[in-house]
Amino acid sequence: MAENTPRTEIGALGEFGLIRLLTNSIKLNQESSIKGVGDDAAVVNHQGKNTVITTDMLAEGIHFDLMYTPLKHLGYKAIVVNLSDIYAMNATPTQVTVSLAISSRYSVEALEELYEGINLACKKYGVDLVGGDTTSSLSGLVISITALGVADTEDLVYRNGAKPGDAICVSGDLGSAYLGLQILEREKRIFLEHPEVQPELEDQPYLIGRQLKPEARKDIIELLKEQGIKPTSMIDISDGLSSEILHICTQSGVGAKIYEDQVPISEDAYNLAIKFNIDPITCALNGGEDYELLFTVRQEDVAKLSNEWDISVIGRITEKSDSVTLTTKGGNVHPISAQGWDPLIKAGILG
Amino acid sequence: MAENTPRTEIGALGEFGLIRLLTNSIKLNQESSIKGVGDDAAVVNHQGKNTVITTDMLAEGIHFDLMYTPLKHLGYKAIVVNLSDIYAMNATPTQVTVSLAISSRYSVEALEELYEGINLACKKYGVDLVGGDTTSSLSGLVISITALGVADTEDLVYRNGAKPGDAICVSGDLGSAYLGLQILEREKRIFLEHPEVQPELEDQPYLIGRQLKPEARKDIIELLKEQGIKPTSMIDISDGLSSEILHICTQSGVGAKIYEDQVPISEDAYNLAIKFNIDPITCALNGGEDYELLFTVRQEDVAKLSNEWDISVIGRITEKSDSVTLTTKGGNVHPISAQGWDPLIKAGILG
Repeated sequence: MAENTPRTEIGALGEFGLIRLLTNSIKLNQESSIKGVGDDAAVVNHQGKNTVITTDMLAEGIHFDLMYTPLKHLGYKAIVVNLSDIYAMNATPTQVTVSLAISSRYSVEALEELYEGINLACKKYGVDLVGGDTTSSLSGLVISITALGVADTEDLVYRNGAKPGDAICVSGDLGSAYLGLQILEREKRIFLEHPEVQPELEDQPYLIGRQLKPEARKDIIELLKEQGIKPTSMIDISDGLSSEILHICTQSGVGAKIYEDQVPISEDAYNLAIKFNIDPITCALNGGEDYELLFTVRQEDVAKLSNEWDISVIGRITEKSDSVTLTTKGGNVHPISAQGWDPLIKAGILG
Repeated sequence: MAENTPRTEIGALGEFGLIRLLTNSIKLNQESSIKGVGDDAAVVNHQGKNTVITTDMLAEGIHFDLMYTPLKHLGYKAIVVNLSDIYAMNATPTQVTVSLAISSRYSVEALEELYEGINLACKKYGVDLVGGDTTSSLSGLVISITALGVADTEDLVYRNGAKPGDAICVSGDLGSAYLGLQILEREKRIFLEHPEVQPELEDQPYLIGRQLKPEARKDIIELLKEQGIKPTSMIDISDGLSSEILHICTQSGVGAKIYEDQVPISEDAYNLAIKFNIDPITCALNGGEDYELLFTVRQEDVAKLSNEWDISVIGRITEKSDSVTLTTKGGNVHPISAQGWDPLIKAGILG
């Protein structure tokens, strides 16, 4: 934020004044939103369909660093990561609740900026903000979001339905968000050591954008529906491909074979990984935060996806006894183990 | 906790190991719980009825002090305060999600203790734990809980339905939780100054219990249903009677007259308030955390409640022009203003 942004202390508004300010522009658009903010609870009616619920917590210093994360982007991302989980169930997100724990460091303007991003994401994905809680923390900002969605029973896709022979597909490209984070972390280190040096962010807008302002793959869910494809299993990629394929295989009781040369990596990500001396496939496998969809489809559905440039077939599901492996470009076969991005590692709680 | 409790570092389990440990004993009992922990999202089906959603965040140092709050009680209370909001809609709670941000100070055993309380409350109130998120914080513990409930449209009670002439009712007694907190805070100060002095908690089990282990008034909701009474408005008392009656009056566009001599205050609370040099009615009006239900009923329903010893009629709803007042025992009339317990005040964010 600019140094000359006006600063209004939250105390000038009071708790209810603050809540009013942040929520008074909220309009309910979903037919299923019966009652929104302002009572003991919100009310939703999904008309006999299933309600899908997910929740995610983001903590300052663990999931985001305010030195390089604009609050508006943070608000946007906090919503998107939850919607991504709803889409990963092959469901349609309908409502969110937003809870914040804030320290006295935050001004009313800062919270308005955060809510600007929250409202923008809600608008873009057509979901209603129906409730939440605003409280204090002794240090830092914690954001907890719960998203609700709706789905017919026959449309729901779980992690446990993959069958041997199914094709393993992934949307978009992987590893970019991780490399975007590496750029931001590098610039932060340079800034802390040499505050007079201008940051060099402009040359990597794609990678930085993937880190700071990810999108949930609503379009992929719509595309699969149009094509008449119901995935046999699905998960969103928040912790990295390795971790997610292992979740699918464990829960489905199957193995998997992934081919390195089929894993989609953007040119920007590939080049920067090489420059940073990291193997590009490592960024894709373990980087995390791509919020792409990883899903399996029956072999007969693969042909329907052949013209979809934004979906890659990266391998196939095998028998359980085959375990989960990566076949490298050189033809070597390595077991895949979960080394995804882990917030508990980040905080030093895990080794 | 006892000094000799074994300590297992969370790192010894890993994130998924920790989640497994904390959730592997969970059984789903609600027919509406289609899918619980273990996928991108949980699935609930309320069969065409309304889903009621509420969320609450509790932060260490703001909402609880681990010096005198056993983790098991904290887990129990965290669930109860959310269920209380669902009951305040005249709905039945069915599911909860639990998100935790934890610092490295917490051992696996500490989290198990917290979950013991969470599971106990879920069992007592018959709700299913269907999801959540476990992540790190750089300092302290933050608990964010979202509760879902179910209700037919015709049963829902909002804050905005009170009409002039309605009787104002409250369950249980008020101010005890606040006085329980004062005892605990006093003992903490004494302990910090004179660690050799034994705490004097034993003589006030009722007040301390009201602070550390509140219950949600499921029984009152059931009783009202049995009596065929649908309140015209309802809210749960988390911030204090003043704050809550003002919410009802503002949202209903009415005034209210409350009589001091009708406000239920326990003998223990009354005596301790006098001893602490606080006016007992102040504890009831502004103390908060009682988690009793404040509701209004039509005049013709009042007679049905005359034998209910645990419900007090404390006043009546008046025209909007009359504002919201307290008539003291001496016959003076004072306007009621919201000075309830405010987590933003507690953290020094509000003056």
